[in-house]
Amino acid sequence: MEPEHKNSSSVISKGRLEFLFDGIFAIAMTILVLELKVPELVDRRSLVELARALAHHAPTFVSYLLSFAMLGMFWYRHNHQYHHFHKITEGMLVLHFVQLAAAAFFPFCAALLGRYHSNLLSIVIYLGCVLVYMWAMFANWVVAKRCGALGAEFTAEDYLRIRTKGLRGCLIISILFAGVVIEALVRR
Amino acid sequence: MEPEHKNSSSVISKGRLEFLFDGIFAIAMTILVLELKVPELVDRRSLVELARALAHHAPTFVSYLLSFAMLGMFWYRHNHQYHHFHKITEGMLVLHFVQLAAAAFFPFCAALLGRYHSNLLSIVIYLGCVLVYMWAMFANWVVAKRCGALGAEFTAEDYLRIRTKGLRGCLIISILFAGVVIEALVRR
Amino acid sequence: MEPEHKNSSSVISKGRLEFLFDGIFAIAMTILVLELKVPELVDRRSLVELARALAHHAPTFVSYLLSFAMLGMFWYRHNHQYHHFHKITEGMLVLHFVQLAAAAFFPFCAALLGRYHSNLLSIVIYLGCVLVYMWAMFANWVVAKRCGALGAEFTAEDYLRIRTKGLRGCLIISILFAGVVIEALVRR
Amino acid sequence: MEPEHKNSSSVISKGRLEFLFDGIFAIAMTILVLELKVPELVDRRSLVELARALAHHAPTFVSYLLSFAMLGMFWYRHNHQYHHFHKITEGMLVLHFVQLAAAAFFPFCAALLGRYHSNLLSIVIYLGCVLVYMWAMFANWVVAKRCGALGAEFTAEDYLRIRTKGLRGCLIISILFAGVVIEALVRR
Repeated sequence: MEPEHKNSSSVISKGRLEFLFDGIFAIAMTILVLELKVPELVDRRSLVELARALAHHAPTFVSYLLSFAMLGMFWYRHNHQYHHFHKITEGMLVLHFVQLAAAAFFPFCAALLGRYHSNLLSIVIYLGCVLVYMWAMFANWVVAKRCGALGAEFTAEDYLRIRTKGLRGCLIISILFAGVVIEALVRR
Repeated sequence: MEPEHKNSSSVISKGRLEFLFDGIFAIAMTILVLELKVPELVDRRSLVELARALAHHAPTFVSYLLSFAMLGMFWYRHNHQYHHFHKITEGMLVLHFVQLAAAAFFPFCAALLGRYHSNLLSIVIYLGCVLVYMWAMFANWVVAKRCGALGAEFTAEDYLRIRTKGLRGCLIISILFAGVVIEALVRR
Repeated sequence: MEPEHKNSSSVISKGRLEFLFDGIFAIAMTILVLELKVPELVDRRSLVELARALAHHAPTFVSYLLSFAMLGMFWYRHNHQYHHFHKITEGMLVLHFVQLAAAAFFPFCAALLGRYHSNLLSIVIYLGCVLVYMWAMFANWVVAKRCGALGAEFTAEDYLRIRTKGLRGCLIISILFAGVVIEALVRR
Repeated sequence: MEPEHKNSSSVISKGRLEFLFDGIFAIAMTILVLELKVPELVDRRSLVELARALAHHAPTFVSYLLSFAMLGMFWYRHNHQYHHFHKITEGMLVLHFVQLAAAAFFPFCAALLGRYHSNLLSIVIYLGCVLVYMWAMFANWVVAKRCGALGAEFTAEDYLRIRTKGLRGCLIISILFAGVVIEALVRR
């Protein structure tokens, strides 16, 4: 928010990018709910019918909670990361937009998974979206390091630790993704 | 918004969490309106037909106003609470996410109640959502106290008063909730 | 945004209310567009068919632009007003929520007007929403004056001028509203 | 966000307009996703059927990515521009609202293009929206220069360079737009 004066090497105000980031996350987390549809009942007063209709859509509710938690976790981790960025270079801005496009795409993935949870392709798409986000986030650390955008309080050991941890997370999801893709190709 | 530098015990910037909170509340309060559907008319110019169609959906409008007021009140009370938190610990962050998930879930509850106001199950779900929010908010006070996150200006008496008041509110809604659940089970 | 420390007489942080206000306005102004539906075409490539379908919905586009301009003007005027409020009392907070509920309700009014522009009742509802907003805004000036919430830089003459101007605006819309209501009752 | 005190010539707080701008962009970028609909499947578990249904909507996904990138680029360029505005005059405020109306209208254009990508009229409308945004942005530079709203750090050469670059961009899109319009009129 603060109209920070950009220094020569920072292409964008850090405050405004943080703002856009938080805004898109707040909206994506809230419009997840638009996927939950009020069911049509024959007997409006029937408890049993409403309970059955909602139970039938239970996977959508599970997908809602899972996706809310995922976006919350992504947001939380961005908080940690962004704190150490002392400037935003063009490469980092592009990576941020990739992260934001994946986050804004999440409500669609969540709706697809909630509707067709037994369809492997919807799991492939959901994991694919998570994967894009995580790799972009990881790349942000690497690019920030190379551009000298990390603050002096962030030591070489800190960086190595974070990089190892980030890489491990990305690889786990990548292997999971590859497994589901292969399974999907086999079952087809 | 302010890129406050996190001290060792705060897991997250207080400003950014406040921002996410306000953003999700602003969106939840605004997308309540998406539940109000423009009715289909046979005679587009007929005042009587439009009036009847809207009157038929009157409970949806009541639910809109009620839910807007509820979210407004929650937001107002969070304002009071958040002011006294001097840092955000991990437990408090998780509780905030529970509050936010309940708030983001509100438009669905409001739509359900507006559509099936005569169905006890929709009242159960609406009250359940309010209940989750209120207990999480109450737990936030308790956890903040235990972690030493409350400022020095907040005396032990202040805390006891707030805790008693919060507990009373939670219990009233819990009893109401239990009553409606029992009623629903009996009527089934 | 700034965690301004509330003084004893201010019930809420001025920064956070401003934030909620701006957030709800930004969302209301953007979800107006959700009312514009992509038409269904028989021949997907037919320019003439698409042009006719869009022309058929022309009033919806006019309603979109009108409502965007109205909300923009309301936002602009709130800017002027809020600048002079040095604290927010409980009465002012309630009036702000009335304003926000009216603003969040705008997308529904806009959709109704766009769809049934030839139906007087939709004009009554649209003007009613504008009316609620304007009177609440006017009441905010009066309440702020009585509670001593206006800054010292705001002289008695400034207040009288603003009050006269505000009252005039409210009365014009009220008379317009009354005229449309009477016309509607006569035509019924 | 900061309650900057308006000086006599600035009609609006620069911080709040920035906030509204960022908010509307965040929302427009996120609700693009609402256009992506979960397809209806006959066999819920069929990978092939889901893949075909999604492939059938491929243009909608392309339109989503394109529009997200466009809005991201507009936002990025506004960042550069806004940084140099030291006050906001009435003319600049009106131009900002034109930009915002075009940005908020983007999700509709994106949906139209995604659905009827082979229909020239949808391309005309999409380009028209881009055109309105770009000319308003260009006009903002010119008006800011005339009102003396540009900071002293912004030299006459800077201005000439920016104006030439902006004009070139506007003219390219205008010619493209004119070409598509003529093509559409011929093909009709």
